[in-house]
Amino acid sequence: MKTLPQILSQRVVARSRIFTVEALDLRFSNGAEVGFERLQSGLNGAVLIVPITDDDQLVLIREYAAGMGRYELGFPKGKVDAGEGWREASVRECMEEAGYRPGQVTLLDSVSLSAGYMNHVTHLVAAEALVPATLPGDEPEPLDVIHWPLGDWKALLDEPEFSEGRAYAALLRTLLHKEML
Amino acid sequence: MKTLPQILSQRVVARSRIFTVEALDLRFSNGAEVGFERLQSGLNGAVLIVPITDDDQLVLIREYAAGMGRYELGFPKGKVDAGEGWREASVRECMEEAGYRPGQVTLLDSVSLSAGYMNHVTHLVAAEALVPATLPGDEPEPLDVIHWPLGDWKALLDEPEFSEGRAYAALLRTLLHKEML
Repeated sequence: MKTLPQILSQRVVARSRIFTVEALDLRFSNGAEVGFERLQSGLNGAVLIVPITDDDQLVLIREYAAGMGRYELGFPKGKVDAGEGWREASVRECMEEAGYRPGQVTLLDSVSLSAGYMNHVTHLVAAEALVPATLPGDEPEPLDVIHWPLGDWKALLDEPEFSEGRAYAALLRTLLHKEML
Repeated sequence: MKTLPQILSQRVVARSRIFTVEALDLRFSNGAEVGFERLQSGLNGAVLIVPITDDDQLVLIREYAAGMGRYELGFPKGKVDAGEGWREASVRECMEEAGYRPGQVTLLDSVSLSAGYMNHVTHLVAAEALVPATLPGDEPEPLDVIHWPLGDWKALLDEPEFSEGRAYAALLRTLLHKEML
């Protein structure tokens, strides 16, 4: 186990409505002193839900992704709200975005986005025993909901609109969860 | 193909040494108007390199990840510098961080981090036909370099220090590249 660097100073250097940038001055165990910047995310993290129907179809959504400036195909996801755990957030988001209430949720893994620059954590959750049920979401337009056979997962990787690294991670964990690898 | 929202306004609302936050006002095709924020990354993107030895060992590095505040196990990676393409950046970073010059590099895929909030793209690159050769990097301390048998990839997913979604994506693409799935 390596000795963690010592934090010499830590302060917020930029803030917008949803982003907070923190500057850190660190001293490594070899004496080197370096300045870093990182994004501060909410403490509760986010959930990414893989809804799987009883006949092994993935339930995907297509929504406008302002970061990339195009529509993105992916799994339902969202922030874990205050007072929620990953279970409650997963059930809520699955109903809001995919239109299903899961009878069973399983935490598959938790992944980071960019460990060097962000403290953001996404919990990857399998949602099974799905029953049609909706909750109103906060999307500006209705989401497209697409069923994709889990057995065709290689073709999903080749879809240009399916692009998030953490969605690949969720798919890999789902294949292991379903004992397909 | 859905009609993209119209961009009503676009401006920088926060900036630090390495982060730039842009605010966007968008009008969706149904008339809904919504404000978004996104992080602007460099135009050239980044590379994440999967170095594979001739005897099918992955070459991993362990380095301090300021975002998560702990050491992270992962693949060599870095920004594509001005004037470079993914090939040049991959060869350079592989020498700087892993200590090998690849004789063959293959673009496996390109992934986003968080398509809704960032325009960041990471190119996933397999690096093979490795020859020991180093270039000086800009790290504050020497990186640990670890060889991990590709056949033991499931155990790698279970390592808590191996946490980035895009690293999972790179591993999945590598398994397909090596015809192991």
